[in-house]
Amino acid sequence: MPTTSREIRLKSRPVGAPALTDFELAEATLPDPGPGEALVRNLWMSVDPYMRGRMYDRESYVPPFQIGQPLQGGAIGEVVASNDPALKPGDRVESMFGWREAFVAPAAGLQKLPDLNVPTQAFLGVLGMPGMTAYTGLLNIGDPKPGETVFVSGAAGAVGSVVAQIAKIKGCTVVASAGSDAKIAWLKSRGVDHGVNYKTCGPLLDAVRAAAPKGIDVYFDNVGGEHLEVALELARPFARFAECGMIAQYNDTAPRPGPRNLIYVVGKSLKIQGFIVSNYWSQRPQFLADMAGWIAEGKIAWEETVEDGIANAPQAFLNLFSGANTGKMLVKLG
Amino acid sequence: MPTTSREIRLKSRPVGAPALTDFELAEATLPDPGPGEALVRNLWMSVDPYMRGRMYDRESYVPPFQIGQPLQGGAIGEVVASNDPALKPGDRVESMFGWREAFVAPAAGLQKLPDLNVPTQAFLGVLGMPGMTAYTGLLNIGDPKPGETVFVSGAAGAVGSVVAQIAKIKGCTVVASAGSDAKIAWLKSRGVDHGVNYKTCGPLLDAVRAAAPKGIDVYFDNVGGEHLEVALELARPFARFAECGMIAQYNDTAPRPGPRNLIYVVGKSLKIQGFIVSNYWSQRPQFLADMAGWIAEGKIAWEETVEDGIANAPQAFLNLFSGANTGKMLVKLG
Repeated sequence: MPTTSREIRLKSRPVGAPALTDFELAEATLPDPGPGEALVRNLWMSVDPYMRGRMYDRESYVPPFQIGQPLQGGAIGEVVASNDPALKPGDRVESMFGWREAFVAPAAGLQKLPDLNVPTQAFLGVLGMPGMTAYTGLLNIGDPKPGETVFVSGAAGAVGSVVAQIAKIKGCTVVASAGSDAKIAWLKSRGVDHGVNYKTCGPLLDAVRAAAPKGIDVYFDNVGGEHLEVALELARPFARFAECGMIAQYNDTAPRPGPRNLIYVVGKSLKIQGFIVSNYWSQRPQFLADMAGWIAEGKIAWEETVEDGIANAPQAFLNLFSGANTGKMLVKLG
Repeated sequence: MPTTSREIRLKSRPVGAPALTDFELAEATLPDPGPGEALVRNLWMSVDPYMRGRMYDRESYVPPFQIGQPLQGGAIGEVVASNDPALKPGDRVESMFGWREAFVAPAAGLQKLPDLNVPTQAFLGVLGMPGMTAYTGLLNIGDPKPGETVFVSGAAGAVGSVVAQIAKIKGCTVVASAGSDAKIAWLKSRGVDHGVNYKTCGPLLDAVRAAAPKGIDVYFDNVGGEHLEVALELARPFARFAECGMIAQYNDTAPRPGPRNLIYVVGKSLKIQGFIVSNYWSQRPQFLADMAGWIAEGKIAWEETVEDGIANAPQAFLNLFSGANTGKMLVKLG
């Protein structure tokens, strides 16, 4: 039973692209769990693009990370000791305490994993925040109908890969953009109709237009930038844009001009709607039921990219921005 | 009974700001109305910002105007002769045949004015396309709730002035932007809480922030450009943007970069939705009933800016872009 825990702290706020020197590995001594508390040893940690936003010192939907404090984020751990009747040693729990090997926290703030026949770490991916982000954003905002064309960027990532597969389940034609031929090949193996390797395709507009000659009805945006401008250009009347993220812009050091063709929003009657997964928290039971069913039927599969050990968490995070991951980026502990 | 009719034709496609030389006055000889047709003499013609878009030769939600052809647009006229039992001389009808003194058309394409106690030309304004644009865009997309803050640009125009007043009817705090102190004074006389003269207020962001210190919940956009960027900056989480028009950009000769802060759409869970009034055609009976009631109760008033004679229609249109109009811009004929 550890009484100490290594953790990753924010050492400095990145300017532009984050660097390893913006993070530091440190050791904390843990107290014994008090009444109502539990001691948890993390097994898997999540690194996610949205964490870049919390490294800025600004007001947002979540408070910024603080210098000298461990980074918060999703993790799955195992209860080692519990002072609360709701948890017992061996229970597997999800938390948001982030990049630590172990921690002590109130049991009420820990979520026991549902009893589903999937690997534990899936609760950080398809069955966790990224999967629910894909599910709720696509279905609530994108509202895809059979026969429509869905365009998804960042399509090999933890969110995009689920979007692409749900869109196929819903009977859509799917055009997926990703940054390597291997990623495109995986997407095609999952039934995606057209893949665009944005790094090698030449002018992105031409490549996506060739894949979607009749235009697009739904755009699920994970990247912003040029992809968003292309989607506006090719949008059919009444198209819906689910704005999930703009990873291409997260490391910008100056405000980036928006798409030059935003005016299409009027004439084409477009809907461009941003969201965060917590807006749809009440849909979690339905999400878990649908997703577990689709996984059991083989309709949803996933890839993982795993780094080992807490010391490698900063590198795993940096790799998100170079697109080094296919599917969910994870850090394995213990 | 005229057998000839003067009309305004598009002579050349404007590049940048339209000029009088882009239009020409011409005379057409009218046939006698055939079976099912009527001869109509126009009394009032509408000039509207959206017509600028139809002067480009491009695909859009309405086909482009053609060189040498009369400009199409809303008009109110009186039936002079009818070969259809549905219409009789003296009936007042709305049409979309545009900038002509008179025309012959199938009676089925003409809409008899409802019997309401308002001046005829109101059916081109508060009770016509601009009023219904304001009503449907604000209520369907903006969805304003009592106590919320609504920001409207182009607020002294035919659409904006109705938006501002409906927002007050719905119990909102209204911040209105317009281009002269006289326009602001009129808006305040109609109950608007805060007026911003964007031509004299200094930095627009500071002026709107001072008027809406808690931020805005609804933005009704008629102008685009800097106003849209300011609205994104001040938007509260879950704010709704009804994108009606971007008049500040209609005469651009090169694509204009979009707002530098569009990324807020994600973190603030914003909805930015464009529309055209015809999307909501089925709501016309409810619109007419509500609007007629509000007019009778004195809750909706309007201003008009009137040019006389068909020869002045091009100048009236040009004046829209300098903001010379307060309220609905009209051309009076006969």
